[in-house]
Amino acid sequence: MSKSVINRLNSKDIAFKDNLKSLLAFESEQDDAIENAVNSILKDVKQNGDKAVLKYSQQFDKVTATSMAELEVSLAECQVVLESLPQEQRQALEAAAERVRTYHERQKTPSWSYQESDGTILGQKITPMDRVGLYVPGGKAAYPSSVLMNAIPAKVAGVKEVVMVTPTPNGQRNPLVLAAAAVAGVDRIITIGGAQAVAALAYGTETISQVDKIVGPGNAFVASAKRHVFGTVGIDMVAGPSEILIIADGKTPVDWIAMDLFSQAEHDELAQAILLSPDENYLNKVEESIIKQLEAMPRKDIIATSLKNRGALIKVDSLDEACEIANFIAPEHLEISTENAQVWADKIRHAGAIFMGPFSSESLGDYCAGPNHVLPTSRTARFSSPLGVYDFQKRSSLIQVSKQGAQTLGRIAKELAYGEGLQSHARSAEYRLVSEEK
Amino acid sequence: MSKSVINRLNSKDIAFKDNLKSLLAFESEQDDAIENAVNSILKDVKQNGDKAVLKYSQQFDKVTATSMAELEVSLAECQVVLESLPQEQRQALEAAAERVRTYHERQKTPSWSYQESDGTILGQKITPMDRVGLYVPGGKAAYPSSVLMNAIPAKVAGVKEVVMVTPTPNGQRNPLVLAAAAVAGVDRIITIGGAQAVAALAYGTETISQVDKIVGPGNAFVASAKRHVFGTVGIDMVAGPSEILIIADGKTPVDWIAMDLFSQAEHDELAQAILLSPDENYLNKVEESIIKQLEAMPRKDIIATSLKNRGALIKVDSLDEACEIANFIAPEHLEISTENAQVWADKIRHAGAIFMGPFSSESLGDYCAGPNHVLPTSRTARFSSPLGVYDFQKRSSLIQVSKQGAQTLGRIAKELAYGEGLQSHARSAEYRLVSEEK
Repeated sequence: MSKSVINRLNSKDIAFKDNLKSLLAFESEQDDAIENAVNSILKDVKQNGDKAVLKYSQQFDKVTATSMAELEVSLAECQVVLESLPQEQRQALEAAAERVRTYHERQKTPSWSYQESDGTILGQKITPMDRVGLYVPGGKAAYPSSVLMNAIPAKVAGVKEVVMVTPTPNGQRNPLVLAAAAVAGVDRIITIGGAQAVAALAYGTETISQVDKIVGPGNAFVASAKRHVFGTVGIDMVAGPSEILIIADGKTPVDWIAMDLFSQAEHDELAQAILLSPDENYLNKVEESIIKQLEAMPRKDIIATSLKNRGALIKVDSLDEACEIANFIAPEHLEISTENAQVWADKIRHAGAIFMGPFSSESLGDYCAGPNHVLPTSRTARFSSPLGVYDFQKRSSLIQVSKQGAQTLGRIAKELAYGEGLQSHARSAEYRLVSEEK
Repeated sequence: MSKSVINRLNSKDIAFKDNLKSLLAFESEQDDAIENAVNSILKDVKQNGDKAVLKYSQQFDKVTATSMAELEVSLAECQVVLESLPQEQRQALEAAAERVRTYHERQKTPSWSYQESDGTILGQKITPMDRVGLYVPGGKAAYPSSVLMNAIPAKVAGVKEVVMVTPTPNGQRNPLVLAAAAVAGVDRIITIGGAQAVAALAYGTETISQVDKIVGPGNAFVASAKRHVFGTVGIDMVAGPSEILIIADGKTPVDWIAMDLFSQAEHDELAQAILLSPDENYLNKVEESIIKQLEAMPRKDIIATSLKNRGALIKVDSLDEACEIANFIAPEHLEISTENAQVWADKIRHAGAIFMGPFSSESLGDYCAGPNHVLPTSRTARFSSPLGVYDFQKRSSLIQVSKQGAQTLGRIAKELAYGEGLQSHARSAEYRLVSEEK
């Protein structure tokens, strides 16, 4: 297996389950040096606010700014950058944003309430968060599509202020990121990054108000800082390496499927691309296509490492079995590249996003189909969801008990409260019993 | 202030904001000894499964069982316990469960999809988790109402298997907890607890299948274990001390309000009970009522400590200002004990549960009004929600791009992919462009 370009497995092998588990195994490591550094940065920013943020930005990003005001980018500047983009690029950005917005509008759910026959009203009120922080990495991992995918759901949810932070190493700004911020409706942009930016958002400083939640990807320092401030603010999931699982019946052109595997593998050497098919001959042809196409890819080294270490072509017994394996893997991205893909999609219980049919390549979803590209990784689709409007809203229960309702509820509550030994709870309910009042 | 039974603040004081912040301040401490112990228990159970779980149960809970089977309680046993309860207690339990179920049924949201004019279908599929673990503390903090509030939303969500774990120190079982499990429809009950129970649920053992999420309260060991296994499984929020904030216009009987403050304070010395009113005289009378009623309360020591250290009666300028302060505090429980409470509730953006009008005591909500009593604490209602059906479901994006749709989307995607330097993404989209294909 070690010489080949990608691992080959067969679900019939006795060791298949164990081999699959080793292939999927991924442990994110916590580095004590990073943890300690982050801890001290957080503490410093909590105590010293802007002064500390500025100090670390000078130190880590080599910015020359001497005030926070210099690190802020105005919305007008972003608009200028957007207008200076090549026409095609600007249109693509705006078209993608529009589609993402349209899809996410459907995720809005209304508050509701109902009245019982005794006049008691119960309900659930849905409200947006007041203020959200969006982390956007600097340098090579700065993706304008991420700005759209994180900021648009927040604005659709009704968040009043989306504050974007993004580091500018040596003061270099990424024009596509700033343009995306303009298109997405970001409200404020500050060119700071790292643990110091997370701390500023989580605790607030003289110039940055405390946010309610921080979303967006980042390096190990940012991920660690987010974990530390969780509880003071909400955070999104800390993502593992990106993954794709493809189920193919053998009718999609092999070059398409090979390129879909590449499109995952090119992200990162730890990214995972797996193909399941009942057609051994098709798997062989995909492997040939991988070998044939690999050389031409600018990111071929990353792709090759990813496929060799973490990729696999898996011969399965049937498409039914492929769906069972998919449910075990609970992949971030699942392509069902088959005829009548809906039939197989109906059997899928756990996946971040399900792409159906040969024309639904993951890359279309990554940029512009409409659904979010921030998805649960590393089997967490078993219990978590794509980033969405619901991540920027929260619910409050509504309880308006009528005088009559209190008579029924009070008798139940006191019985249970005494059973739990909570006498004040019981008395509080009993006070509302009219016969016992006065 | 130090001699009084409860702190008194006035929103007009210059130091008010600072005083309020110190009153609210609560830092949950992480104890290194606990962290290390938990780490080693988790590792042991991950490696040695049932054997390790059994060992720790013998060690910590002094159980005499020598096999996991002995630690399992059958559903039939729970049913027997339920039927042996006093009639009134059983009816109260069943009535509460029924009301909780009815309310949570309203939280279910359907999957949806829509078709675009070019045939592309986009949507969102909602599915329940397969298996959920419910932790129920043993000893004095074993609340049957917690069993209802955690298990019922999971069953309403469609979770097939709810596995309850609860320690039985010295083998002693809590009949009310077992009865509640029967009423709530729990599927499996294992009398294990502590970090070893969390590990068994998170990793799976020979006799316990891995779950997708673990919910329910626990001591410091349980809370630490849940934090550690987060990512392998989902967890609910680790709760801080419980809180109530009451806004009163002065028309609710003072004894009722004092008892409502007690009902929060009796939970825990760290619990927080705060009353806001524009009527100074009313606040004085509530304080008198506190003094008058305290002596008779069985849990008076806990109540007195809680009120003295963390409680407050706050004179505010107006009910409008009270609502502003409530939004800053983002309380777990908010009682609006006023006339036309709905008017003030409309101004509340952040609260776990809003109780409106003098008859809506928190205790009614704790047991049986219908909404969940697992609520966000420590200002986290700014970004999180009551436990609900949505916590036991997750979403998958659905993307079925038509051939025609791929022509539009492919052009947008390739433009953005090239902009981000992800050439395989671009090629994967381009392959679906018919004019460029073949």
